[in-house]
Amino acid sequence: MFNPFRSKPDLIVHSETPYNAEPPLDRLRARMRTAQPDFYVRSHGTIPHLNAATHRLRVGGRVGTPLDLSMAELRQRFPGRSVTAVMQCAGNRRADMQPVRPTSGDPWAPGAIGNAEWTGIALADVLRAAGAETDAALHVAFDACDEVEMPNEGRFTYGASIPMAKAMAPEVLLAFAMNGEPLAPEHGFPLRVVAPGFAGVRSPKWLAAVTVQDRPSNNHMQQRDYKLLPPHVTEDTVDWKQGLTIYDMPLNSAICEPAPHAWLPAGTTTLRGYAVATARAVMRVDVSIDGGRTWQQAELEHDADAPWSWTLWTATVHLPKGEHELAVRAWDSAGQTQPALPDDTWNFKGYLSAAWHRVHVSAG
Amino acid sequence: MFNPFRSKPDLIVHSETPYNAEPPLDRLRARMRTAQPDFYVRSHGTIPHLNAATHRLRVGGRVGTPLDLSMAELRQRFPGRSVTAVMQCAGNRRADMQPVRPTSGDPWAPGAIGNAEWTGIALADVLRAAGAETDAALHVAFDACDEVEMPNEGRFTYGASIPMAKAMAPEVLLAFAMNGEPLAPEHGFPLRVVAPGFAGVRSPKWLAAVTVQDRPSNNHMQQRDYKLLPPHVTEDTVDWKQGLTIYDMPLNSAICEPAPHAWLPAGTTTLRGYAVATARAVMRVDVSIDGGRTWQQAELEHDADAPWSWTLWTATVHLPKGEHELAVRAWDSAGQTQPALPDDTWNFKGYLSAAWHRVHVSAG
Repeated sequence: MFNPFRSKPDLIVHSETPYNAEPPLDRLRARMRTAQPDFYVRSHGTIPHLNAATHRLRVGGRVGTPLDLSMAELRQRFPGRSVTAVMQCAGNRRADMQPVRPTSGDPWAPGAIGNAEWTGIALADVLRAAGAETDAALHVAFDACDEVEMPNEGRFTYGASIPMAKAMAPEVLLAFAMNGEPLAPEHGFPLRVVAPGFAGVRSPKWLAAVTVQDRPSNNHMQQRDYKLLPPHVTEDTVDWKQGLTIYDMPLNSAICEPAPHAWLPAGTTTLRGYAVATARAVMRVDVSIDGGRTWQQAELEHDADAPWSWTLWTATVHLPKGEHELAVRAWDSAGQTQPALPDDTWNFKGYLSAAWHRVHVSAG
Repeated sequence: MFNPFRSKPDLIVHSETPYNAEPPLDRLRARMRTAQPDFYVRSHGTIPHLNAATHRLRVGGRVGTPLDLSMAELRQRFPGRSVTAVMQCAGNRRADMQPVRPTSGDPWAPGAIGNAEWTGIALADVLRAAGAETDAALHVAFDACDEVEMPNEGRFTYGASIPMAKAMAPEVLLAFAMNGEPLAPEHGFPLRVVAPGFAGVRSPKWLAAVTVQDRPSNNHMQQRDYKLLPPHVTEDTVDWKQGLTIYDMPLNSAICEPAPHAWLPAGTTTLRGYAVATARAVMRVDVSIDGGRTWQQAELEHDADAPWSWTLWTATVHLPKGEHELAVRAWDSAGQTQPALPDDTWNFKGYLSAAWHRVHVSAG
């Protein structure tokens, strides 16, 4: 039986069942592409151990020719594609929101994110081969193999969907490898969706079926979770139909080094972190050592050939002796920036926590 | 000679030379499409009075076949296209930033924006007819007819550019009409660029020449103005090469009714305004009567067939007796929202003022 604690001794584990864990931020920041053992794991139920030799993908719904293909047939029939892209949980940085008012969900630090080269086949190629209808009003639903159990919902199999326009975009893959290695079981072996720019919930792991349909997935994950609701809505008053389905993710950034509450020698210190945008590029990252009263610009590292990748940043600052509130904020190519306070985007599910990231340190 | 004050008695005039004026916000909010007499005017120099019978457009640079066409030839040779789109000044809402620290530029209220049906021909069609190179690294420069005079710059003709990817997008027009009427002289008669989503500076009026080139326009407007700079940069320290060229505009919203400092009867009051996004759609608008401590959701009015159009919003609130700070903020389809304070995006040029819009009123 899979024991995540043995195979990943170094992740910060928020939950054992389902298994949810994120890397320490200095390890996350160490590489442009996040190694699988350093990649956060968000699961909602079981972690299936599937057999690639027998696993099959079914493609149906509003298609001319339903497909039922083995992994070998998928690889033979469709050209290989790679995309370097961020995967992030809609709850990344939720811990920053919880001091405002409690939320449901695990208290993710800024580590529920990673950036990898994903390799597989294009979902669009598969849909075309099946003769799928591709009207923009349609949706592409995914059924997975993980069994989820929730109060009031009973036991069900994970599923989610994306709009057809995204499904036909060339960057959306059915992936079987990360950074050139087969997917680990906890990352969806042997086949997962990778929808770059979208929250991780829309990229199911352990993919079993693709269905073209005229409405979003009827799964719990699509209908009664992973929606953004206004700040006055609570678990008791929520009308899920009023929520905004989370697909694309907002501009965000985080300080990965130094760690919160670090003690540092006074003088020159290097801050490091990441910034991420989806529809647009990160153009500027500002850092502050006085909680946002004054700012200086960080150096950016970004692969221009990988638009779905994150931006790593580095800034050298001078810290006088004393207590300091470090802060970071990113700007995109439209001159849009992040809100200042976690309260500005608070919601009872703790999604899309994207205010300036603040880290308190002492220098002496 | 053109006398803007006679033809537009009702606009709020910030400057007579060059002529810069915006409509009262209740008139701006009265219609989904802004009538020409209600449309803000931003000019940088003269307002040319051109003759459509003799005006010509030249197309050159990295093209296979340079063109030199009359207005009649443009209309005959290329299919007509219409797009309903917002045009807005990069300085819209600058007045909200100036109390933080002074900025250069006119103190625009939230009226330096309008939404119109633009009719003309697609720039992409013209570029294709000229056999233009269309590599994504190229730029399309526009030369206009208005004469600008600036200290240290002398006298020059207005010009600006957009990246090739935008120039080839189907929504970018060379327009000769607004809402079915010929352009008024102050709106660029007989031909102007309309680059939806981009700041108005990139949509020159009185268009005379289109040039495909390997770098952005060398014009003052492209090189030493209309760039976003960090908050510590001043007019004295600015290095324009470090600025972010303003193309796409950030998420924004404004309260158009009631007016600032209005006295209202206590009880039920209707708030009205607009919200605008560019790459994404406006999905939610929140209004507050307590400066942002609590929020309720506005009703949205948006034409789904006009993605470049704005969103009008309406909210009915209950105002107790007393002083109130009304506020509005918009959310886009990525769950991204506006910063809370003008200080959060302050820059010495006063561009991209997009914090929550706040209006103080009294109820009694």
